[in-house]
Amino acid sequence: MHTRVLQLEQDILAGNNHVAAHVREHLATQHTLALNLVSSPGSGKTTLLVETVSRLKAHRPVAVIEGDQQTSLDAERIRATGVPAVQINTGKGCHLDARMVHEALHDLPPLPRGVLMIENVGNLVCPAGFDLGEQTKVLVFSVTEGEDKPLKYPDMFQAASLVLLAKCDLLPHLRFDMARALACIRQVNPDATIIPLSSTTGEGFDAWMDWIEQQCAKA
Amino acid sequence: MHTRVLQLEQDILAGNNHVAAHVREHLATQHTLALNLVSSPGSGKTTLLVETVSRLKAHRPVAVIEGDQQTSLDAERIRATGVPAVQINTGKGCHLDARMVHEALHDLPPLPRGVLMIENVGNLVCPAGFDLGEQTKVLVFSVTEGEDKPLKYPDMFQAASLVLLAKCDLLPHLRFDMARALACIRQVNPDATIIPLSSTTGEGFDAWMDWIEQQCAKA
Repeated sequence: MHTRVLQLEQDILAGNNHVAAHVREHLATQHTLALNLVSSPGSGKTTLLVETVSRLKAHRPVAVIEGDQQTSLDAERIRATGVPAVQINTGKGCHLDARMVHEALHDLPPLPRGVLMIENVGNLVCPAGFDLGEQTKVLVFSVTEGEDKPLKYPDMFQAASLVLLAKCDLLPHLRFDMARALACIRQVNPDATIIPLSSTTGEGFDAWMDWIEQQCAKA
Repeated sequence: MHTRVLQLEQDILAGNNHVAAHVREHLATQHTLALNLVSSPGSGKTTLLVETVSRLKAHRPVAVIEGDQQTSLDAERIRATGVPAVQINTGKGCHLDARMVHEALHDLPPLPRGVLMIENVGNLVCPAGFDLGEQTKVLVFSVTEGEDKPLKYPDMFQAASLVLLAKCDLLPHLRFDMARALACIRQVNPDATIIPLSSTTGEGFDAWMDWIEQQCAKA
């Protein structure tokens, strides 16, 4: 890669990190937990979020920022649960950045001791490098995608502290080697927490909600 | 976006287009059909390619260029069929570019009246803008990803002339509205050919092989 491109990339990341730090400070004043959900397109992030915020809203303030190249379909699905949501359309862009999140926060209520869910653009590459001011990234890895994705997209799997193995209800219909998938995750990120779950059957949701509560206690 | 970033992006795309034109001319001298397979991570491109080249190799020269951030797992799977394959690792990169394809061609035999399959990095955003010298892009859209992906990632669906609706064997186990999926594809790309198929059952492969033969006749 040319030096000029590398320098520009560093400038962009430095600018992003500056805004992300500001977002993080702002959220900390309210003890708001912010999670940055990343995955391939079609891993089931929105269905997972609909189910998650429906459970969370009973005992914590919660809101969602939705990222997509186009459409406001996802924000509409979240709002149908009664939870506030802001849709960001990135157009040609392949990831959210901290400036977009900062602007979206102006359209959301404060969330004291609550949870802000940020659903990134479906992309296992580019969002890995962009801090949005979140406490941590949560990677949603659908079992339909095959066991080897952690090895092929190691940056993203290393950037996440929690991997949700999603769509586990489909396991009986797939040739998916769970032991190999777990080994692939461990190989690139030995410290990641891993929770198998299904938004269809509810399997794994108790563990996922417990994990969120543990993170809230630290926010 | 800053003017400087836009200008740099235009420079990169212009440089890429120059190399892509060279690749295209080179392939045309041999009447080689080049297809650029794009999709989300885990859509089943490699499994599809293994089955496809196994059928093709009996009557046409065929080779594969595999793109991934890391690993040579996919090239190894192709080579196990007896078909030559070159693995490109993009590292931090989110797409193949024409220069990478140009270099990989030096490691492959000529394919007179044959087929070069290029499996791009799994990413529904960034590969849309990069011409690799192919005749056309083929988008592999797994039915596990949900009906609305064409609306959310319109650039990629507009860039492809063929959409392979993959993993159709899983339809009985999914809440997937086929009529809505077809309508979403048509909405962003009315001219696309659409073939539902399954690498597990072989459904749709005759139509896919016929489509390849039609493209070969024009190469």
